[in-house]
Amino acid sequence: MCRFLAWSGAPRYLDELVLNQEQSLVAQSRNALIGKTAINADGFGLAWYSDRNNPCFYKDTHPAWSDANLKQLTHHTRSGLFLAHVRASTGTATSRNNCHPFGYGRWCFMHNGQAGGHDAIRQQLDGMIPASLYGDRLGATESEAIFLIALGEGLDQNPIAAMARAVARVESLSRDSGALPFMRFAACWSDGERLFAARYASDRHAPSLFYRKCKTGIIISSEPLDADNGEWIEIAAGTAIETQGTVLTSHPFAPGVAATSPQIRGQHDAASSAA
Amino acid sequence: MCRFLAWSGAPRYLDELVLNQEQSLVAQSRNALIGKTAINADGFGLAWYSDRNNPCFYKDTHPAWSDANLKQLTHHTRSGLFLAHVRASTGTATSRNNCHPFGYGRWCFMHNGQAGGHDAIRQQLDGMIPASLYGDRLGATESEAIFLIALGEGLDQNPIAAMARAVARVESLSRDSGALPFMRFAACWSDGERLFAARYASDRHAPSLFYRKCKTGIIISSEPLDADNGEWIEIAAGTAIETQGTVLTSHPFAPGVAATSPQIRGQHDAASSAA
Amino acid sequence: MCRFLAWSGAPRYLDELVLNQEQSLVAQSRNALIGKTAINADGFGLAWYSDRNNPCFYKDTHPAWSDANLKQLTHHTRSGLFLAHVRASTGTATSRNNCHPFGYGRWCFMHNGQAGGHDAIRQQLDGMIPASLYGDRLGATESEAIFLIALGEGLDQNPIAAMARAVARVESLSRDSGALPFMRFAACWSDGERLFAARYASDRHAPSLFYRKCKTGIIISSEPLDADNGEWIEIAAGTAIETQGTVLTSHPFAPGVAATSPQIRGQHDAASSAA
Amino acid sequence: MCRFLAWSGAPRYLDELVLNQEQSLVAQSRNALIGKTAINADGFGLAWYSDRNNPCFYKDTHPAWSDANLKQLTHHTRSGLFLAHVRASTGTATSRNNCHPFGYGRWCFMHNGQAGGHDAIRQQLDGMIPASLYGDRLGATESEAIFLIALGEGLDQNPIAAMARAVARVESLSRDSGALPFMRFAACWSDGERLFAARYASDRHAPSLFYRKCKTGIIISSEPLDADNGEWIEIAAGTAIETQGTVLTSHPFAPGVAATSPQIRGQHDAASSAA
Repeated sequence: MCRFLAWSGAPRYLDELVLNQEQSLVAQSRNALIGKTAINADGFGLAWYSDRNNPCFYKDTHPAWSDANLKQLTHHTRSGLFLAHVRASTGTATSRNNCHPFGYGRWCFMHNGQAGGHDAIRQQLDGMIPASLYGDRLGATESEAIFLIALGEGLDQNPIAAMARAVARVESLSRDSGALPFMRFAACWSDGERLFAARYASDRHAPSLFYRKCKTGIIISSEPLDADNGEWIEIAAGTAIETQGTVLTSHPFAPGVAATSPQIRGQHDAASSAA
Repeated sequence: MCRFLAWSGAPRYLDELVLNQEQSLVAQSRNALIGKTAINADGFGLAWYSDRNNPCFYKDTHPAWSDANLKQLTHHTRSGLFLAHVRASTGTATSRNNCHPFGYGRWCFMHNGQAGGHDAIRQQLDGMIPASLYGDRLGATESEAIFLIALGEGLDQNPIAAMARAVARVESLSRDSGALPFMRFAACWSDGERLFAARYASDRHAPSLFYRKCKTGIIISSEPLDADNGEWIEIAAGTAIETQGTVLTSHPFAPGVAATSPQIRGQHDAASSAA
Repeated sequence: MCRFLAWSGAPRYLDELVLNQEQSLVAQSRNALIGKTAINADGFGLAWYSDRNNPCFYKDTHPAWSDANLKQLTHHTRSGLFLAHVRASTGTATSRNNCHPFGYGRWCFMHNGQAGGHDAIRQQLDGMIPASLYGDRLGATESEAIFLIALGEGLDQNPIAAMARAVARVESLSRDSGALPFMRFAACWSDGERLFAARYASDRHAPSLFYRKCKTGIIISSEPLDADNGEWIEIAAGTAIETQGTVLTSHPFAPGVAATSPQIRGQHDAASSAA
Repeated sequence: MCRFLAWSGAPRYLDELVLNQEQSLVAQSRNALIGKTAINADGFGLAWYSDRNNPCFYKDTHPAWSDANLKQLTHHTRSGLFLAHVRASTGTATSRNNCHPFGYGRWCFMHNGQAGGHDAIRQQLDGMIPASLYGDRLGATESEAIFLIALGEGLDQNPIAAMARAVARVESLSRDSGALPFMRFAACWSDGERLFAARYASDRHAPSLFYRKCKTGIIISSEPLDADNGEWIEIAAGTAIETQGTVLTSHPFAPGVAATSPQIRGQHDAASSAA
């Protein structure tokens, strides 16, 4: 399990959220207060949108708290849309290629969760990735696989439904393997315009996910960054949110349903886009 | 393309070959004299057999010449069977998981070469890896894939024929992709008792490979470690050698033939085991 | 503050203590049970004596728990005398040069503690290092400085008294700077024959230090490696121990006294050698 | 010896010079055409000025050509004043703390060269660093020491003369040690407004240094970035240049003279500010 946060709104320095909060992301890398894993020190990553087409990535394998470059870069970089992640490996190696966020074109994606039986299903998971995207399969995490599968499911056309279908397909593999939990999923993804987040689990234990509306934008975070808990709103399991500028909309996020029925899947798409 | 060396014989300190030769492996990491790539500084690796069942691996991503641990470990470790490799990436990331040698149980394997169209065939390559071995697919190189496929082809039973079949299968994928060169292959592998090496290409440019008989054992190396060139024997393309103790035997290594005809493949196996 | 352990006795695999204990050193890197800092993940190091003259060092900057090489090397290396350390930086950078153990010739040294006002006294500390040893000043920790100063104080001739004098000189610098605590010190050092450990503080908070006698040797450790607490003996503050083979002797370790009076320092030396 | 480049002028993406030139800095890291060391792969560093007070630093220990973060950051970062460096160690460890550029407040500094007898003079060199700056002595290179000594000599008040005095003091130490060459020095430094460069040696072998005037600014580089050699002007040994916006002025840079005579040093300062 991992910790992450994202910002959408007026441009601000990344260290304001990544470092300079009571329970900043770097603080969470040493001592996460919610979730199974207090220490999230198996690498980290940043993605931010600048004036280039694609986001900029900085990732490395050291603990976030001891990375001198991270302090420098977050102190000097300002962005209106950024994602940041600290990793706690659930098995795969500590390697830059296994660090989140993952990127493809304008898109980036980060994840906290797991699919049961990962070792048993990994080859099938790799086979599910569209051939044209396999060159972008750099690491070995199920997180990166879910992202690439979602791109194949039409992330560009329907960002929430495509992600739900990808999660459903991976959950289905996991169910076949028989290893619990089949799917725990909290994630954040963006195309540089909109920021999406979703929370879901095949059991009652969806990974934590919160957001907070500020004057100049919206923070999404695995856990509240400060003790001002009244301001932090927990995203309900089975829900996705979408932020564009300061407008936040909520959608159902129901991969299990989507997976078993194309009809319902179609409805879900409609519901999603109508929400 | 990469550089490597291996030793089979009386126990000796690894630094005698890895560091303390005119054209030692570390010297080759800065300035290889043969081959396409003078600089081989995208990581390195060592595997040696000790008194445990499986070989010990030390790999890292820095250039071999600047790694302080490498100097320490090769100076203090003595082994009668070891492999050492310096990497020049042909595309995949500089990552410990992409460093040679690769290991599985008693076996280890290292490689210098390439399969044309690697990006186009990588997913099929991953699909060729036996399901039971996919948990050991840690990186993204075709080298590691060839090794795991060879294990599935029966490396335990017939170490040279199984490797030839694996190379043939990968070459066949590469031919289908249409990207030249289809296969260039110099490799070394061991089960802790025997040391194998093979040299082969689908064109006229098999990567260089040499051996030298010493009083106490046999060195296999991508290029001579000293100017005493009369002592270094070039392994002919299409040939595999096997060393057990100080006994060296030579075998045909003809993946192209093996790939296209099960009958001939059977004969090759027979020839190989009779050699 | 940091955690460390050492073994003196019959040769054994390093992973038996470093990894395969209830509260192994790697477990302590994630969750130390005693001391101020639960997480000790700013690098690690090993030193072991083999059949070469000087000890072999393996150090790196990643957390001990995620280092694949550490698992390999400790599983395959057997030694009758080894030291292992996981670091929690008290300020200086995460850098291989700041990782313990430090080495000079046959000697190696590792430390858990601090000297108050480190930043203010660092230049004077560097000036205290004997000129002939300054080439071996590779990092910026006070730990390495204490070791090099101790070598200059005659570690070869009188390993405990020389260390006490070095600690006294550094404590004296710290007192002049006025920053508390002046000195907290738990350390372990060896010349390949004898293993020394000492515990001391200028206040009441000497860092924890224990030993346990086993059938085949002696373990020294920052905290017990298992819940069998009756077997673990706490070293009293102001005490040094020396193990040679299975013989353990105890000595006073009183840097404060030594520092203020050459006469008493002389007596201390005598007491020490007679203990 | 190392390679470096700097830009002063209209904001531009860093990769335009660092990566996308015929003989870009990254190309020089693999194959420098001028100078003693073709391979400059012992770490690298960037410093750029943004809208924060102090420059932003990104440094790491891998070869520049294989660092995925370097590609990302230089592609997305635009600055009107930046410095970039690839290192070839002349002895000290490959460590982030030994990577250039070095920083202090608004200032940053990078260097290509050496002072003879570095090991013998290092402790005296460290003693020369002003006490108030010693907390910023993070590594072990003479380059960082020269920078900190220059700050103490008044870099803020007189950037060229202070640097000349620092170089003179270090050369003097080197002369006392008797180890040739006493001083070879090519360097670049900036306060975020002005960019300075100097070339000097105590013998006839000053490290190479060039500049080129472009439409929108000035490039300083260890060697020409393209074959358009007519555009590249070699800086003469014993000369410093200063660029402010697109205005370039030239000054004598005569550390040897400055060192031996305060009177002449005063004149030099005057000459310098009048140039």
